[in-house]
Amino acid sequence: LERDKYENNEVAGVVTGLAWTSVGGDILFIESILSKGKGSLNITGNLGKVMKESATIAMEYIKANADKWGIQPDIFEKYNVHIHVPEGATPKDGPSAGITMLTSLVSLFTQKRVKKSLAMTGEITLRGKVLPVGGIKEKILAAKRARIKEIILCEDNRKDIEEIKQEYLKGLTFHYVTEMSEVIDIAVTDQNVKNPKKL
Amino acid sequence: LERDKYENNEVAGVVTGLAWTSVGGDILFIESILSKGKGSLNITGNLGKVMKESATIAMEYIKANADKWGIQPDIFEKYNVHIHVPEGATPKDGPSAGITMLTSLVSLFTQKRVKKSLAMTGEITLRGKVLPVGGIKEKILAAKRARIKEIILCEDNRKDIEEIKQEYLKGLTFHYVTEMSEVIDIAVTDQNVKNPKKL
Amino acid sequence: LERDKYENNEVAGVVTGLAWTSVGGDILFIESILSKGKGSLNITGNLGKVMKESATIAMEYIKANADKWGIQPDIFEKYNVHIHVPEGATPKDGPSAGITMLTSLVSLFTQKRVKKSLAMTGEITLRGKVLPVGGIKEKILAAKRARIKEIILCEDNRKDIEEIKQEYLKGLTFHYVTEMSEVIDIAVTDQNVKNPKKL
Amino acid sequence: LERDKYENNEVAGVVTGLAWTSVGGDILFIESILSKGKGSLNITGNLGKVMKESATIAMEYIKANADKWGIQPDIFEKYNVHIHVPEGATPKDGPSAGITMLTSLVSLFTQKRVKKSLAMTGEITLRGKVLPVGGIKEKILAAKRARIKEIILCEDNRKDIEEIKQEYLKGLTFHYVTEMSEVIDIAVTDQNVKNPKKL
Amino acid sequence: LERDKYENNEVAGVVTGLAWTSVGGDILFIESILSKGKGSLNITGNLGKVMKESATIAMEYIKANADKWGIQPDIFEKYNVHIHVPEGATPKDGPSAGITMLTSLVSLFTQKRVKKSLAMTGEITLRGKVLPVGGIKEKILAAKRARIKEIILCEDNRKDIEEIKQEYLKGLTFHYVTEMSEVIDIAVTDQNVKNPKKL
Amino acid sequence: LERDKYENNEVAGVVTGLAWTSVGGDILFIESILSKGKGSLNITGNLGKVMKESATIAMEYIKANADKWGIQPDIFEKYNVHIHVPEGATPKDGPSAGITMLTSLVSLFTQKRVKKSLAMTGEITLRGKVLPVGGIKEKILAAKRARIKEIILCEDNRKDIEEIKQEYLKGLTFHYVTEMSEVIDIAVTDQNVKNPKKL
Ligand SMILES: [Ca+2]
Ligand SMILES: [Ca+2]
Ligand SMILES: [Ca+2]
Ligand SMILES: [Ca+2]
Ligand SMILES: [Ca+2]
Ligand SMILES: [Ca+2]
Ligand SMILES: [Ca+2]
Ligand SMILES: [Ca+2]
Ligand SMILES: [Ca+2]
Ligand SMILES: [Ca+2]
Ligand SMILES: [Ca+2]
Ligand SMILES: [Ca+2]
Repeated sequence: LERDKYENNEVAGVVTGLAWTSVGGDILFIESILSKGKGSLNITGNLGKVMKESATIAMEYIKANADKWGIQPDIFEKYNVHIHVPEGATPKDGPSAGITMLTSLVSLFTQKRVKKSLAMTGEITLRGKVLPVGGIKEKILAAKRARIKEIILCEDNRKDIEEIKQEYLKGLTFHYVTEMSEVIDIAVTDQNVKNPKKL
Repeated sequence: LERDKYENNEVAGVVTGLAWTSVGGDILFIESILSKGKGSLNITGNLGKVMKESATIAMEYIKANADKWGIQPDIFEKYNVHIHVPEGATPKDGPSAGITMLTSLVSLFTQKRVKKSLAMTGEITLRGKVLPVGGIKEKILAAKRARIKEIILCEDNRKDIEEIKQEYLKGLTFHYVTEMSEVIDIAVTDQNVKNPKKL
Repeated sequence: LERDKYENNEVAGVVTGLAWTSVGGDILFIESILSKGKGSLNITGNLGKVMKESATIAMEYIKANADKWGIQPDIFEKYNVHIHVPEGATPKDGPSAGITMLTSLVSLFTQKRVKKSLAMTGEITLRGKVLPVGGIKEKILAAKRARIKEIILCEDNRKDIEEIKQEYLKGLTFHYVTEMSEVIDIAVTDQNVKNPKKL
Repeated sequence: LERDKYENNEVAGVVTGLAWTSVGGDILFIESILSKGKGSLNITGNLGKVMKESATIAMEYIKANADKWGIQPDIFEKYNVHIHVPEGATPKDGPSAGITMLTSLVSLFTQKRVKKSLAMTGEITLRGKVLPVGGIKEKILAAKRARIKEIILCEDNRKDIEEIKQEYLKGLTFHYVTEMSEVIDIAVTDQNVKNPKKL
Repeated sequence: LERDKYENNEVAGVVTGLAWTSVGGDILFIESILSKGKGSLNITGNLGKVMKESATIAMEYIKANADKWGIQPDIFEKYNVHIHVPEGATPKDGPSAGITMLTSLVSLFTQKRVKKSLAMTGEITLRGKVLPVGGIKEKILAAKRARIKEIILCEDNRKDIEEIKQEYLKGLTFHYVTEMSEVIDIAVTDQNVKNPKKL
Repeated sequence: LERDKYENNEVAGVVTGLAWTSVGGDILFIESILSKGKGSLNITGNLGKVMKESATIAMEYIKANADKWGIQPDIFEKYNVHIHVPEGATPKDGPSAGITMLTSLVSLFTQKRVKKSLAMTGEITLRGKVLPVGGIKEKILAAKRARIKEIILCEDNRKDIEEIKQEYLKGLTFHYVTEMSEVIDIAVTDQNVKNPKKL
């Protein structure tokens, strides 16, 4: 099935991640939506324990640092959040979708567009650091196949990129980060999504 | 047991799906009902984790986009929803009942009839896209056996239909979609069900 | 142990089902009681997941269609329901007790007697249809041993009866149904049980 | 360890059951206590699923038939019940402690003494019937070793007693019952326990 | 690791138990603390199901008999209790810590010191009896190594002590009990702990 | 991946622990954050049961001894706490992160900086004692690689240090403790973190 290509950025909460599955590198989408509720967090997509934990960490980090992005803290109590990773037939796990989930939620809570043609991979922490992840080469190849133009990685993954032949990297721009706030600075634009929700 | 044939569309929430089980293609019914309550979602039918997740995704998507179909948001808090997939003896899993569940719930919340002699298969997402699924050939054959006339599929499954011999497709009309809202446009009619509930 | 014979119908909620276990056909009783509470549903009897789901489906169907049988909807919030299938030493599963559980609960909520010397087997759905089940021949023989006189089956199980030798069917009356409401029409009488509860 | 002998009947809720374990017949005690609370039911003693279900069935049966024994229904909401089966090192399961648990709870809620030197074994149902159980011979021998004088059994277990040599039965009186209310009539006396709780 | 020796009795809720692990006899500490809350019971220490049940039994027994030790019943609703058994790397199970947990909780709720240089082992019941346990010889040797001076055992374990050579018992005093209240009489002193909490 | 080196101490709740994994000694970070809530405790990081229990023990100990560190007890009811141990791809278990979690939470609730270049390992208890742990040599080597300068250990682990060659210990200062309060005295400074939260 050839269904993984970059889509547009009209919808809040949709972010492109890079994954390393049993069949090689792949892109995946992180999606999130809000519905009126009491602050529950729903996570789907045939995810393992560690990937579900990433969603919790992203959520708690945003709650604890809401003012960084101008998010009203009472939003967290008035809405339920649902995070989904499509392609339910494929089991997914590991911490590398952390920064993608973080970006998805910040886009959701701010109703701002995510930068176009951007993908990312990196583990998140509660102290605000981005950690390096594995499978970089396979992920980069998948990103190219999907027409991705820019990629966010942990600074500690720079050496993995430097080991890849130059010709495979043509047309790709890399952003190396150490802080989670840098991810948001790069990934979340100032433009509203189409039909933004009033939160 | 020969119990799978298309039935009528008098009851809200009953939609015909196409499934691919260990014994080949089959049709299945998605059923849903409302009872007074506090918004809980009950899912039965001997379903695996991924198929249960589809029900959650459909529900959350509808909650977040209720105005698209004129659904009053307070309904979600005043009723419990129960989604069931009959034939409890057969374990069922996978994401391909997504659009069928979505259609079932929109029919339920609007009390509108589902189009006659229609079946469907496709994965749903939170961003509103329909994703392609597998087992298309077997599903089409099952649909014909059950006297289905129209079928909704993901645009990306068009090529799977094109690979099937023309004679097997006689009498079938195909609707290829990319958006979940297209599914509803095609599948949910403007006619009330028999004895519609006042919600 | 020879303990399976038809009993009387003095108690609300007691209905005779036909089961197909690892040791052949058998009858089983579905029992249910009400106690003051907040609407919880308790299910016991060493049951597997699918049989427990049948109890949930029966309960939700009755809630959604309470007016069909003159049941006051506030009953569901003021009482807890406990459904039990005796003979705890035997694990039980499968969907075929569905119509028996349905009948048990309608008898319970209306405090009406179940028809005498009646047994039944059939899967239930949320859309009100009865589905056929397996093991019909073994179940019929068990019913005769237990002095059952009338049996409710799905219309689609008629052919299974027609394959059984006439001599085995002597003394048995069959009711073939397609709708769940037909089951209740046949099985639940207009007579109060002994010492009916005022609900 | 030789610790199984009949004790006195001073404490409410303590009843002697007959069990059939991997090492042969044995007696066991069912104990229960009340503490102020909101009606929760706590079950301990290294019990399997079916034995825990017996406790639930006993509790629900008593709630639904509280007036039979003059139990004020508001007690169930004002106290938590804890049922325990001592000798935690031994896993226990099966439905045969049903009438023992029933007796324990009726003694507890009425604060009446259980008859002296009495033991019992039998499955309970929600419709008020006692069902026969297995291992009768081994259980009777264990009862004699523990100086039990009277035994309650299901009427359908009478034949198991009749197959035992007369000499083994000397000094034992048998009560054969079919109704759960008969168990209580025989087992629960009109005498208060020592220091009865005011409920 | 040589870390098991008797400590002082300054802190409420700390009691020395005797355990029989895969590597022989050992002492263990039962610890408990109160924090403001709503009556929840938290149990940690890498414990198996039966040992966790002992904590529940001890707690419920104390709730039901609070007046025996002058404990105000409203304490149970205003505090959360946490019981811990240190040395998390070692899995622990079985009923023999029952009287140790009981003593820990009575000391905690009364803020009284536990007797010095005392250890104990015995199963508890809801009817107030102490039951015998196994591994007595190994436990006694471990108690001596840890400088324990007095030991509480079930009366039915007296014979296990009588089978041990006299020379191993030198310097040890034994208390044989049949009632749980005797354990508390012996183990909990009238002296406040250091910095007692006002409950 | 070479990502384990000591970081700064600007953020509350970030503490360096010493771990012993299947691939040898390692440092790990314990992180914790507060978000407005009702006192729930969230624990992530691909942790096993015993390591999760350590987090609970630390939390309950701090609740019961809040005044020791000037923590207002109402904080516990007004905030949710999330403890995370990064590097989700690595399963982690065991009790040795106890004192690290304790330090993390005290830093979090006081918003004070943790001492620079400090790491620690030790089991915690509810009675306030620190217990020794294993793998000391491997942990020390990992600490040196990560540029740690000071290490807190249980007094009972002193002998493990004395068995290590002097040259491996150069540049390291050891603090041996027996009480959990000593850990806090050493590890938590009087300096506010950067941008302290007003609790
Ligand atoms: Ca893919
Ligand atoms: Ca930006
Ligand atoms: Ca089928
Ligand atoms: Ca339409
Ligand atoms: Ca039977
Ligand atoms: Ca009728
Ligand atoms: Ca025994
Ligand atoms: Ca009586
Ligand atoms: Ca030890
Ligand atoms: Ca005393
Ligand atoms: Ca590491
Ligand atoms: Ca300090």
